[in-house]
Amino acid sequence: MHWVLLANGPLTLSPVIRQVISTAERLIGVDGGSRHLRAMGMLPHLAVGDMDSISEELLQEYRQADVELHLHPPKKDATDLELALELALTRGASRISILGGTGGRLDHTLGNIFLLSRCLPAGIPACIMDQEQCVHLTDQSLTLSGAVGDTLSLLPATPEASGVSLTGLEYPLQDATLTFGTSWGMSNVFVETQATVTLRSGRLFVFHLFRS
Amino acid sequence: MHWVLLANGPLTLSPVIRQVISTAERLIGVDGGSRHLRAMGMLPHLAVGDMDSISEELLQEYRQADVELHLHPPKKDATDLELALELALTRGASRISILGGTGGRLDHTLGNIFLLSRCLPAGIPACIMDQEQCVHLTDQSLTLSGAVGDTLSLLPATPEASGVSLTGLEYPLQDATLTFGTSWGMSNVFVETQATVTLRSGRLFVFHLFRS
Repeated sequence: MHWVLLANGPLTLSPVIRQVISTAERLIGVDGGSRHLRAMGMLPHLAVGDMDSISEELLQEYRQADVELHLHPPKKDATDLELALELALTRGASRISILGGTGGRLDHTLGNIFLLSRCLPAGIPACIMDQEQCVHLTDQSLTLSGAVGDTLSLLPATPEASGVSLTGLEYPLQDATLTFGTSWGMSNVFVETQATVTLRSGRLFVFHLFRS
Repeated sequence: MHWVLLANGPLTLSPVIRQVISTAERLIGVDGGSRHLRAMGMLPHLAVGDMDSISEELLQEYRQADVELHLHPPKKDATDLELALELALTRGASRISILGGTGGRLDHTLGNIFLLSRCLPAGIPACIMDQEQCVHLTDQSLTLSGAVGDTLSLLPATPEASGVSLTGLEYPLQDATLTFGTSWGMSNVFVETQATVTLRSGRLFVFHLFRS
C-alpha cells in the first residue's frame, strides 16, 4: 500500500505531484501539510502533528470527516514528519512518498532526507519528492523511470559505498567505490528512460532531477 | 589563515556575509561564484573552475590583475568547489568558510555540505554559510557565538554520535547519544550568546540559524 505523507514545506502542485497524490492509497497530513491537499479539494486519511499550524476550523472539519487524528504535544523529541513516518511503517506501508519535505529550512530539509534511513531496515521503498526531483536512499538496488536528459546524482551516506554499478546513464559505472564527501557521483545524465543503481555495501543518496 | 570560497549558488550580501568576505585573508572565486565579489567591487585572489560560467571579459580582467587561475576541463570527476577546497587545504588554510554553496540545486547543496568532511582529518574548522545560517561538521567540539533566540539543530552524520553535550541552549544535553535518521536534535534555542557542542565519537552536522 502506497502511503503519501504531506509535510508543511513549500510544494508546487505540478502534474507529477498531483499524480502521486491522486494515486496514493493512504494520505497523511503532517501538521500544516494538509494545506497542499486542501488546494486539491482533498482531505487526508490521517493527520499527524501538534496541530499548531492547523486552524480550529480545519480540525473541526477533520473530526466531522472522520480523519484519524494523531495529536502530539508541541514540545517533543521527534518532528511531526518522523512521527508520521513511524506511523506509516507501523501500519504496513509497502511504499512511502514524502511531499513538502524540501525547500523550507535547510536543517529541516536535511533532517527529512536523513529520515529515509528509517525505511531501509524494513526494506520499504521511500523517497522525498517535490516538483523538481525525487530523492531516494538505497543500500541495494534501485530502478528509476525518467526521461532522457534527466539528471542523476549519487552521494554516499556512509564512509564508503562500494560495488556501485550504473546503467542507462551517460557515465556508467561498474563495481565502483564512492567515498563520503566526494563529488564524483554528481550530475550523471539519463540516456535511456530507465536507469539502475546497484551497490554491494554502504548506502547511497540518489537524486533524480526531472528535466525541466 | 582564513580562506573564503565563493561558490556559484545564490547569496544575499547581508552585513554578516559582507563581513566574512571583507575579513578573509584569501578569497577563491569558484567558477561563477566570483560574481558575488564583483557585486562588492572585489576580485578573488584565486579562481578555480572550468570557467564555463565566467565571461571572456572577466577572465581578461583576472589575467591583468594577476588573479591565480586554476582552470579545469568541464568534464571532470570532482566539482569545482571540491577542487577549490582541496586547494585551500593544500595551501595551509587554518579556517575555511564556503559561501554560495547552499540554496541552489538540492543535490549540489547536500554534496557541498558533505564536502565539509574533507576538513576533519586536518582538524581545519570549516563551515558553509549563507545569510540565514552557518552549517558545521564536527567530530570533537565546537563553540558558537550567536544571539539569544538563534536556532541550533544537530544531525548525526554517522550511524551514531555519542557523548554529546550541549551548553548555552534551551535544551542542554549531557553525554547523550543521537542516532542517524532521528530528529531529536532539531530546533534547539540559544539562551546565551555562546553555545557549545561536544561529542566523544561520531560526527555531527551543526546548523546555526540566525534569528531573523
